[in-house]
Amino acid sequence: MPHTLALSLPFKGAQFSRTTIERRALRPDDVRIDIRFSGICHTDLHFGHDDWGGTFFPLVPGHEIAGVVAEVGETVTRFKAGDRVGVGCMVNSCGKCGPCRSGEEQYCADGFVKTYSARDHDGTVTLGGYSQSVVVSEHFVLRIPDALELDSAAPLLCAGVTVYSPLRRWQAGSGKKVAVLGMGGLGHLGVKIAAAMGAEVSLLGHSPDKEDDALRFGAARFVDTRNPDVLTGLAGHFDLIVNTVPARLELDTYLGLLDVGGTLVNVGAPGDPVASYNVFSLLGAGRSIAGSSIGGIRETQEMLDFCAGHGIAAEIERISADQVAEAWENMPDVRYRYVIDVATLASD
Amino acid sequence: MPHTLALSLPFKGAQFSRTTIERRALRPDDVRIDIRFSGICHTDLHFGHDDWGGTFFPLVPGHEIAGVVAEVGETVTRFKAGDRVGVGCMVNSCGKCGPCRSGEEQYCADGFVKTYSARDHDGTVTLGGYSQSVVVSEHFVLRIPDALELDSAAPLLCAGVTVYSPLRRWQAGSGKKVAVLGMGGLGHLGVKIAAAMGAEVSLLGHSPDKEDDALRFGAARFVDTRNPDVLTGLAGHFDLIVNTVPARLELDTYLGLLDVGGTLVNVGAPGDPVASYNVFSLLGAGRSIAGSSIGGIRETQEMLDFCAGHGIAAEIERISADQVAEAWENMPDVRYRYVIDVATLASD
Repeated sequence: MPHTLALSLPFKGAQFSRTTIERRALRPDDVRIDIRFSGICHTDLHFGHDDWGGTFFPLVPGHEIAGVVAEVGETVTRFKAGDRVGVGCMVNSCGKCGPCRSGEEQYCADGFVKTYSARDHDGTVTLGGYSQSVVVSEHFVLRIPDALELDSAAPLLCAGVTVYSPLRRWQAGSGKKVAVLGMGGLGHLGVKIAAAMGAEVSLLGHSPDKEDDALRFGAARFVDTRNPDVLTGLAGHFDLIVNTVPARLELDTYLGLLDVGGTLVNVGAPGDPVASYNVFSLLGAGRSIAGSSIGGIRETQEMLDFCAGHGIAAEIERISADQVAEAWENMPDVRYRYVIDVATLASD
Repeated sequence: MPHTLALSLPFKGAQFSRTTIERRALRPDDVRIDIRFSGICHTDLHFGHDDWGGTFFPLVPGHEIAGVVAEVGETVTRFKAGDRVGVGCMVNSCGKCGPCRSGEEQYCADGFVKTYSARDHDGTVTLGGYSQSVVVSEHFVLRIPDALELDSAAPLLCAGVTVYSPLRRWQAGSGKKVAVLGMGGLGHLGVKIAAAMGAEVSLLGHSPDKEDDALRFGAARFVDTRNPDVLTGLAGHFDLIVNTVPARLELDTYLGLLDVGGTLVNVGAPGDPVASYNVFSLLGAGRSIAGSSIGGIRETQEMLDFCAGHGIAAEIERISADQVAEAWENMPDVRYRYVIDVATLASD
């Protein structure tokens, strides 16, 4: 079995260590990818800290993977060595259930196999993108268009599709008023993508020093959520609120900003997942609270092509493998996504 | 000003008393209705007990009104004396905002004027249907088709449209799996209407003695919600759950019964309106929690016509004016709606 270098957390509470992991020998439908860049998603931290329980240690996080095809299995038709590719949050699913057949592998009836910390169908535990190489079934490999740089494309594989999918489902576009709540990794891409779709975008955040960036990314306005008067003035304004904030919110405050029939969609997976609301916040205007989890493989490719066509990529801070632990500490301050230069795994 | 007999609660905690109230002189667009029947809605009790605060006393409840036109104002064109008509939860709205112009008066930007316990635009406080007569602007008067009896049509004006509207919005029909949660006044109409729309309907309730009724009303199955195994077996089954239960629920249990992209819609207004859920219950399958409040006037007429066309009416227990206090006590046991025979106001 091929070996590859990786950054691993050997157990809960441990520090990262460079280690050698095994990747499986190529199956007929497999693609072996030389990883060039790996984004750091907030979910990586939740798994590293075992916030939701059930993390498999040793843990190699990373599900925002961009690289180049090294080798393909004998039945692979869509990729060849040298192709620029990406891998997101999924590396397997049953392939047979309704959601899988309709391209919504993220809602696979058996649960999709996560790119790391999951038991794959062959019994092995998946290991993610903080590593030099990964082997993934062709179906779960995305093509990264030439117009995108590999480093700033990496975060699109999770953060990008996580905001793209609900914006498409709730038809963000011309004439629609969209609020993006929170401007971190997900939120900044939400602003860019919703604006490119033609919607009037407002960024709702508590860091006024991000106002210039929000406007530069395409927002029509920045709304300081610490100012109750401003929020009151926006009562009933929005058709859609994309909530990227991983912390507990005063949901009723934000539901009140929705127009009749409007939807607040949760896309972030919070450490504390219990939320509460007042039923009258929904009844009073036929509103909805929804959840959306990443996006299907077909939709992820559509998102990459959309971003390439609109010149959209993540704003990133490239870091070396040695800086990952520090990056995890500094997640609230990153503008707007840390991306590991995987070449530094060997050379540091 | 014309006077009329009514059942009134003079103050919070008081007993009902027969009293004389004033109805306004006819304006050009007004319809004076001789009330024949008035349904008892759970909301009447919430107002009577001032559960949400702000009830105007003396209170004359009643927003499921069926009667006959006695007289019309000079500009009224759609009704004439002798017509069979109804009035639901609304008697006025601004008429100018987006929702009003699109026929969703229930979501009027200024708030619609409730049929009772509301301040109308002329400054008067509205008094409801537990009375012999009411004067209502033509726009808020519904036509009751000849195929419907006035007594069993009365509950359609609130309970009927409250379930009809979300069933339409979420496209209950052939191929759709709909659960109705709770079989009281709203729920039993939900089963009948969803079945008539062509959906596969399941009644989810905790009273197995209602199973025969549920099947008779058109449900394909009765599901005893006190049996966790049965619920587990229905995981991911439903496209839509219409929650008519006015009590606090274990929302996550029911969200788990929804298929990918499914919606749980709250239609009942609970005494304790705070609800909580786990965000993962939504994220895991792109699910939604929604709220729906009654329906617009145009949609209410559509519902009445639909019910007439499908032989649907409420199951009722007719009571006299003297039995109203007792009926309020016995609300959990009614099969399935108390309707006051308003003629008994004078004769008892």
